[in-house]
Amino acid sequence: MKFVTFKHEGIEQVGILALNEQGVYPIKSLGINYDSMISLIENITDHEMDLLQKSLTNNDKEYISIEDISKMPPIPNPNQDIICLGINYMEHAVESARYKNEAFGGDRPYAVYFSKRVNTATADGDYIPSYPQIVDSLDYEAELAVIIGKDAKDVPKEKAFDYVFGYTIINDVSARNLQTRHKQWYFGKSLDGFTPMGPCIVTKDEFVNPPVLRICSRVNGELRQNSTTDLMITSIQDVIHELSQGITLKAGTIIAMGTPAGVGMGFIPPKFLKPGDIVECEIEGIGCLKNIVK
Amino acid sequence: MKFVTFKHEGIEQVGILALNEQGVYPIKSLGINYDSMISLIENITDHEMDLLQKSLTNNDKEYISIEDISKMPPIPNPNQDIICLGINYMEHAVESARYKNEAFGGDRPYAVYFSKRVNTATADGDYIPSYPQIVDSLDYEAELAVIIGKDAKDVPKEKAFDYVFGYTIINDVSARNLQTRHKQWYFGKSLDGFTPMGPCIVTKDEFVNPPVLRICSRVNGELRQNSTTDLMITSIQDVIHELSQGITLKAGTIIAMGTPAGVGMGFIPPKFLKPGDIVECEIEGIGCLKNIVK
Repeated sequence: MKFVTFKHEGIEQVGILALNEQGVYPIKSLGINYDSMISLIENITDHEMDLLQKSLTNNDKEYISIEDISKMPPIPNPNQDIICLGINYMEHAVESARYKNEAFGGDRPYAVYFSKRVNTATADGDYIPSYPQIVDSLDYEAELAVIIGKDAKDVPKEKAFDYVFGYTIINDVSARNLQTRHKQWYFGKSLDGFTPMGPCIVTKDEFVNPPVLRICSRVNGELRQNSTTDLMITSIQDVIHELSQGITLKAGTIIAMGTPAGVGMGFIPPKFLKPGDIVECEIEGIGCLKNIVK
Repeated sequence: MKFVTFKHEGIEQVGILALNEQGVYPIKSLGINYDSMISLIENITDHEMDLLQKSLTNNDKEYISIEDISKMPPIPNPNQDIICLGINYMEHAVESARYKNEAFGGDRPYAVYFSKRVNTATADGDYIPSYPQIVDSLDYEAELAVIIGKDAKDVPKEKAFDYVFGYTIINDVSARNLQTRHKQWYFGKSLDGFTPMGPCIVTKDEFVNPPVLRICSRVNGELRQNSTTDLMITSIQDVIHELSQGITLKAGTIIAMGTPAGVGMGFIPPKFLKPGDIVECEIEGIGCLKNIVK
C-alpha cells in the first residue's frame, strides 16, 4: 500500500493511492480515522491495515483524482530530526574523499550517523531554496528512508523489520560549504526546505527484507545517480540493531540510509545545483520525487 | 523569574519558583493557563509575564513546598533535537585534541554545530544510565543552554536577544567511544537518558546580554570544570544570527552552548564516570543540576 498526505478542498488528510495511481482514497472515507500520518503510524492496527488493503481491491468507492489534490510530504512535520547515514555506499565514499579528503576521507570501520533538522518537509513538486547569500555548493542526494512503525529498543538484527512501517524517498539536500566548514555536518544539512520527501510511504510488505531497489537521480533529465539499495555498506537491520541499543527509536522516526555515487560534488569539476534546475530522485516501487531549485 | 516543570499529586504542571526557592507557585493558581512549558514559551504574553512577576512579590498566595513536588526537567520532551556547539571554549579545545586529535584537533575557524536527540530529558536528581555493554568512556559536560522564545529567522546579531526566552543548564552526557568511532558525534550524544536538564529556566531579564556567569561541575564533590560563560568562542548572538540565516529556530528550540575545560577525557589518565558517581553541573543564577550515574 502507498500512503500519502494531501490537501483536498483545503483540508490536510491521509489517504492511500489507488492501484492505478490516478487517485487517492482518503482513509476517513474508508472508515479509518487518523488526522495525520504520524498518528496513523503510531496507532494503526493490523485489522485496520487489512481493511484498507481490501478496499483498494474492492473498487466500490470513488477516489479523488490525483489532479484535484495538493500533494504534501508524507510526514510534513516530523516529530524529531531525521537520522541520516553518511558515506553508506562505497563508490560515494570514493567520490566524497576526492572532493574534500579532510571532511570525507579516512577509514570508517563504523557507520557514520548524523541528523538533519526538518521544520517542514518539502512536497513532491515544490521548490528547493538555494540560499545564494550563504551557499555556493548546493547538492542533491537521493536516499531510501526507513519509517519506524513502533518504538524500537534493544532490537536484535533478525527482528529489525518487525519495527519498520515502510519506506519513502528523501532528497538529502546539502550545502557542501556549510557541511564541511563547520566540521560536523548538521548545519549544512538542516536549512529550511532541504528535505524533499515523498511522493508516498510504501508499506514494508510490498518489498523483501531488506528491500533491493534501483535508486537513481536526474538533474534536468541527465542521469546522475544510478545504483541499487543492496550496495549499502551498513544495512537497515544493522542500523536498527545498533542505534536501538542506546536510543529508543520512536514510532515515526525517519532514518535516511545514505546516498549512492553521482552527487554533484562527485564530478570533476563539481556539478552543483543552480536556480531553475529540476532534480528527480527515483526509487523503484516507491516513485519519483521531483523538485525545482529556486 | 525561574520557571519549573513539576508533578504534584500526580499532575504535571508548570510553575514559578518562590523568591526563597522553598516552594513553587503553579501558574494556574495565578490565573495563567498553559499545560506545558513549550506551550507557555510559544504563547505567553508580556502582560502575563508581568502578572506572574507581580504575584511573586505580592506574598498573598501559598506555595507548594519544594518537598512536596516531584521535579521534572523544565522541557521534558523537546519538540526537536537539541542544537549543540562543540569545542566552544579554548581550553576545552586543547584538552579534547590531547585526548583524540583526529576527532577533535585541527583548525576551527567556524563554530561546530551538531545535534543531540532527546526522547525524554532527565530531571535534576534522576539517574544517568551508563550502558556498560556499549559505553566504556562515559563523560559529563556542563553547559549553558539557551531557550528560544519566538520563531527566529534572519536575525541580525544586535536583535538576537529579542528571540531568547531564557536559560537552563544541560549536562551534555557523552559516550566518548561512540562519539568518536562514528566520526559524526550524533550517536554518542543521543542515548536515552543522556540529557539531564534543569533545575529551572531563568528568564533572560535576570541577566545581562549576553549573560556572564560562573559555570562549573563537580564529580563526587571534586571540582572538575570551573569557568565563565564569557569565555565562549562563538557567542549566543553569533549563533542565533548564523543559524537563523538558514534555519528557522522555532520557539522552544534549545541551543546548548558548549562546555568548558575539565571534562573527564581532559585528564591524564581520563576520569570517566562510573556507576554511583554523583555529577553536579552548576551555573551562577540558574542553580545546580545533580544526577547519579546508574
